[in-house]
Amino acid sequence: MTASSRIAVDVMGGDLGPHTVFSACEKALQDFPFLEISAFGTAQAAASIPLTLQNNTRFDWLQAPEMFSAELKPTEILRHKESSLWLAVAHLAADKADACVSGGSTGALMVAGKRLLGMVPGIDRPAICQRWPTRKGQTHMLDLGANLEVSPEFLLQFAQMGSVLSKVARPKVALLNIGTESNKGGSLLAQAATLIGQDEALAFAGFIEANHLLDGDVDIVVTDGFSGNVALKASEGAAIFLIEQLKAAFLGSWYGKLVGQLAKPVLLKWRTQFDPGRYNGASFLGLSKPLIKSHGSADAQAFYNAIRVALEQTEHRLPALLAARFKASAE
Amino acid sequence: MTASSRIAVDVMGGDLGPHTVFSACEKALQDFPFLEISAFGTAQAAASIPLTLQNNTRFDWLQAPEMFSAELKPTEILRHKESSLWLAVAHLAADKADACVSGGSTGALMVAGKRLLGMVPGIDRPAICQRWPTRKGQTHMLDLGANLEVSPEFLLQFAQMGSVLSKVARPKVALLNIGTESNKGGSLLAQAATLIGQDEALAFAGFIEANHLLDGDVDIVVTDGFSGNVALKASEGAAIFLIEQLKAAFLGSWYGKLVGQLAKPVLLKWRTQFDPGRYNGASFLGLSKPLIKSHGSADAQAFYNAIRVALEQTEHRLPALLAARFKASAE
Repeated sequence: MTASSRIAVDVMGGDLGPHTVFSACEKALQDFPFLEISAFGTAQAAASIPLTLQNNTRFDWLQAPEMFSAELKPTEILRHKESSLWLAVAHLAADKADACVSGGSTGALMVAGKRLLGMVPGIDRPAICQRWPTRKGQTHMLDLGANLEVSPEFLLQFAQMGSVLSKVARPKVALLNIGTESNKGGSLLAQAATLIGQDEALAFAGFIEANHLLDGDVDIVVTDGFSGNVALKASEGAAIFLIEQLKAAFLGSWYGKLVGQLAKPVLLKWRTQFDPGRYNGASFLGLSKPLIKSHGSADAQAFYNAIRVALEQTEHRLPALLAARFKASAE
Repeated sequence: MTASSRIAVDVMGGDLGPHTVFSACEKALQDFPFLEISAFGTAQAAASIPLTLQNNTRFDWLQAPEMFSAELKPTEILRHKESSLWLAVAHLAADKADACVSGGSTGALMVAGKRLLGMVPGIDRPAICQRWPTRKGQTHMLDLGANLEVSPEFLLQFAQMGSVLSKVARPKVALLNIGTESNKGGSLLAQAATLIGQDEALAFAGFIEANHLLDGDVDIVVTDGFSGNVALKASEGAAIFLIEQLKAAFLGSWYGKLVGQLAKPVLLKWRTQFDPGRYNGASFLGLSKPLIKSHGSADAQAFYNAIRVALEQTEHRLPALLAARFKASAE
C-alpha cells in the first residue's frame, strides 16, 4: 500500500478563483486514494467549498485571515504572513505536508519558499523548471524566471537539478544560446559549457537555439531566468496568436464556417495536444521541499495537473534525491 | 520621375542557392523600373544566371573569386575580402550602391558592415531590427542579436533608431521584460525606462512581456540582442511546431484527410498571413548605410521582400534621417 501524500493547496492564487481550485481538488482526491489535501483560503472562499469536499475526510480546510493579491509586490509578502499563500508554504515547512501548490505570484512564492523552506544544501539558487511538450516526448527547461543574472556555476547547478527532476539517466543537456557555434554567446556561456561538459553524469549536447526548443532532441535546456521566461512567454504568445488567426480564417467566410464545423474534431484534438494546461505546474527547484506554481490562468484541469506534479515529486522523493545529488557533487 | 535605386546583392548567402536570389532579382527588376541591381557571386553561380537577367541592362554581374560560407566564423570574414559578401558591402561603401542585401551570416555581415560602412555619428552600436506581424499592423523590434550585452544608453539609442525606421511620429516604445511592474527586471531596465521616458520624441509605454509581442499595442519593442533573438526564434519555433501538428492532425485519419482537403483554401490563407517570408529583411540599424540581412532559408518571394526593405530604406533616406536624429539628440 502506498503511504499517503499530503499536499498543501493555496486556493486563492489563481485568476479564475477558488471555485476552480476546489474542482481540481475534487478530481484529484477521486483519482488518488492516497492523496490528502490541506486547503488554505479566506472565509469568503470557505463559503463556496463544495459539499463533496466538505464531506471528504481527506480534505482539510484551514482558514486564512487574508489572501496575497496579485496587485501586491512580492517583497510585500513578509507583511502578509496571514495570507493563504504564506500559510500553505508554512504548513509544508512545518512537515504537515509533503508538497505545496499555489497559483499565486511567482515572486511571492519565491520569497516564501526561500524564507520558510530554505535551500537543499549545496544548491545556491532556486530555479523555476517546467516541462515542455516537444516533437519527441518532453523537455525540462530552467530557469524560467527566478534568476535574472546567473554565473556559469549556477547554470551547472540548474543542469544538475534538472537531471534529478527529469529522471533520465545521463540526460542530454543543452544551453540556450543565439547560435550553435562554440564561440557564440560570450564567455559566461562558454564557461558554463565547459562545466557541464565536465560533469560525467550529464551528456552535454552543446548550444540550442530557441527555434529548436520543441524538437525534443535534449532532455534538459538550461538558461538564465530572463531568457527562459522570454522563450516560454514568446512561445505561448505565438501559439495563442496562431490559434486566434486560424479561428478568424475559418470564421471569415461562409465556406470557412461550414468547413470549420466539419473540421472541429480535428481542430480540438490538435489544440488539446499542446494545451499549456497539460504541462501546468512549475517547480521551484533547489528549495528543500516541493513547491509547485500553477499558472495564474489555470482552469480546473490545469490546476489538477499541477497537483499531479506535486504528487509525482513527492513519490519521486525529489528533495532527498536532490540532497543526495548535491552531497555527491560537493564531495 | 523617381531617381534610380541601386542595390548591391550578394547572391551566395542563402541556404537555397543563387537560383533563388536570381528569381527574386527578376521579380524586383520587373516590379520596380527604377531599380538597378549589382549582383555579386562566384563563377559557378554565374553559370546559372537566367537569360532575362543577362539581357537586362539594369542587372550588373560582378564576379567574386570566392564565397563566405556558413561554416566559417564571422571573425574569419577579414580573411575573405574577395568573397561576394565582402565585395557587395564594399560596393555599397564605395557609393556604387545605395543599399546592400545578403542572406549571409549575421556575424559576417556585422563585421563587414562595421568595418566598411562605419556608424552613423552619435550611435554607439548597431542593432538588428525587424518588423513583426501583429494583431494590429506591425511592430519593430530590436536588437535581435547584435549586442549580447547592453547599457541603458544603448537601449535608449535602439528606441531612437527604431523610431526613425518606424516612420511613426512619437511612436509607442516598450521595453521587453519578464513582468510589467516597474520593479521587474533589475536596475539596467529601470535605468533604460527612465532614459526612454525622458525622450519627448518617444511615447514610453513601459514594460512588455514576451507573450504580448504580437498584440501590436506598441510601435517599437526594445531589448538586448540575446533576449530579442530568443523571442524571435522561440516564436518562429512555436509557429512551425503548431503548423506541423495541425498538418499531422488532419492527416491522422481518413476523416481528417477529407476535411483537410476541403479546408485547404482556409488553411493556406491562414499560413500566408503570418508567413515569416513576408517580413523578411532585417536591418543593421546604426550603420552609415542600409545593410539588409535576408533570412538564410528565404525563398525567392522572401528574398524579394528583403530587396523591398532595402528599397524602402533608400527611398526613405534612412541614413540621412538617422544622422539628423542623432545629431539633434547629441546637441
